Amino acid sequence: MDTQTLQAALGEYFAPWVQALALEVMACDGDRVIVRLPQQAQLARVGGMVCGQAMMAAADTCMVLALVNHLGSFRPMTTVQLNTSFLKPLSGQDGIIESRVLRAGKSLAFGEIDIRGANDGKSVCRSSTTYALL
Amino acid sequence: MDTQTLQAALGEYFAPWVQALALEVMACDGDRVIVRLPQQAQLARVGGMVCGQAMMAAADTCMVLALVNHLGSFRPMTTVQLNTSFLKPLSGQDGIIESRVLRAGKSLAFGEIDIRGANDGKSVCRSSTTYALL
Amino acid sequence: MDTQTLQAALGEYFAPWVQALALEVMACDGDRVIVRLPQQAQLARVGGMVCGQAMMAAADTCMVLALVNHLGSFRPMTTVQLNTSFLKPLSGQDGIIESRVLRAGKSLAFGEIDIRGANDGKSVCRSSTTYALL
Amino acid sequence: MDTQTLQAALGEYFAPWVQALALEVMACDGDRVIVRLPQQAQLARVGGMVCGQAMMAAADTCMVLALVNHLGSFRPMTTVQLNTSFLKPLSGQDGIIESRVLRAGKSLAFGEIDIRGANDGKSVCRSSTTYALL
Repeated sequence: MDTQTLQAALGEYFAPWVQALALEVMACDGDRVIVRLPQQAQLARVGGMVCGQAMMAAADTCMVLALVNHLGSFRPMTTVQLNTSFLKPLSGQDGIIESRVLRAGKSLAFGEIDIRGANDGKSVCRSSTTYALL
Repeated sequence: MDTQTLQAALGEYFAPWVQALALEVMACDGDRVIVRLPQQAQLARVGGMVCGQAMMAAADTCMVLALVNHLGSFRPMTTVQLNTSFLKPLSGQDGIIESRVLRAGKSLAFGEIDIRGANDGKSVCRSSTTYALL
Repeated sequence: MDTQTLQAALGEYFAPWVQALALEVMACDGDRVIVRLPQQAQLARVGGMVCGQAMMAAADTCMVLALVNHLGSFRPMTTVQLNTSFLKPLSGQDGIIESRVLRAGKSLAFGEIDIRGANDGKSVCRSSTTYALL
Repeated sequence: MDTQTLQAALGEYFAPWVQALALEVMACDGDRVIVRLPQQAQLARVGGMVCGQAMMAAADTCMVLALVNHLGSFRPMTTVQLNTSFLKPLSGQDGIIESRVLRAGKSLAFGEIDIRGANDGKSVCRSSTTYALL
């Protein structure tokens, strides 16, 4: 898998409302995918902060790409669990989302996601997640 | 607080991308708010299922309304944690989201959210959440 | 299944350190099991509060009993995820733990656990959990 | 703080039932503490695997030590949330628990915990957690 294939998957396998996040696949390797969440007025709450809903959606989406990349194909899967902690606001900058496959077994896969500010590099949001591989 | 005030809050305090979910406030009482998530093509993944990202966003949003309703005013708050379990797919029907304040202390509030199918009444998604009251 | 069978299971299938919690099965029905966690000096932190570690252990254990009861046999299973929110301290009273099976599919089961004070009936701890059925 | 001070804290601030885990503080630096969970018959389920309840208890305890170490004193705190994913069984070896403070603000602190097998170095359990600083 390469970043172009994963970028194409964003346009093909995800709901239009998720595509509206305008995620850009930046890099991938065996168990990680890195995606950019561009700063956008439509994602901002009063005060200019990126809304938490967009960060959770980006985290889940980036993790699916990491699993697709890890498994090497678009195997059907569903999110079983997504737990998110919001450490601090993301404001005035893009978000950099890094998802990592911790373990992919026969029927369950585990992963973690970190979101950082693109300018200051500080973690703003951390998720852990479980997927069922169908 | 009444449902009209909470519906108006949806248009005022949330990001446009969250408003695109088109949530409709149906009912509220002391510690609960019930909201409808209408079925929409833009929220559907391949196969017609409502995407999990939309359910998490709706859960968080509905919980903020329950806290606003419980506290009686639009006090600033941030989501600290949101944990979601996806029990089964939501497909071919609206979602009914019920959020409940479990405990609201001086600085932290706890809540739980249930999403059911509007037609079959079956739980599809359960969230638990923590908010910091600022 | 009845409470005696579940009480016997506590002595047979759990680690001695978990048995030291001295849980007492109080009631069960199709999808719920209720267990008492007796107040004990060995579970108390400085200040007399029941330690959170004991509440998480009791929640997980009570949920396993609810699944065993729901499935009707001691089918092998492993905890995939356990998420716990601590709402307030439990102090000077027993804990009443109620676990409920939300959904048990072919390979995954979901549940929720509530812990209340035996005297004041107030929720002190809420968990949600996922199990893999082997 | 040094490992001796943290080891002494284990005997002073935690419930006897938690002390029965026999945790050994191995190392600490600015935001991390590493602790060993010795293999013990009393922690084993049928089949010789370390019970999940012991891993959650060890994770929470190790994280409290990391916060104490980070803050430089035994400031009162309570666990708000602890979320744990069990990736695979821990069997026939000690567990190595590494806790890390992600962020410690004025009133809330966030951390993550990893448990690995002491012999094979494989992650078996991951937790994320939120504490309220009082």
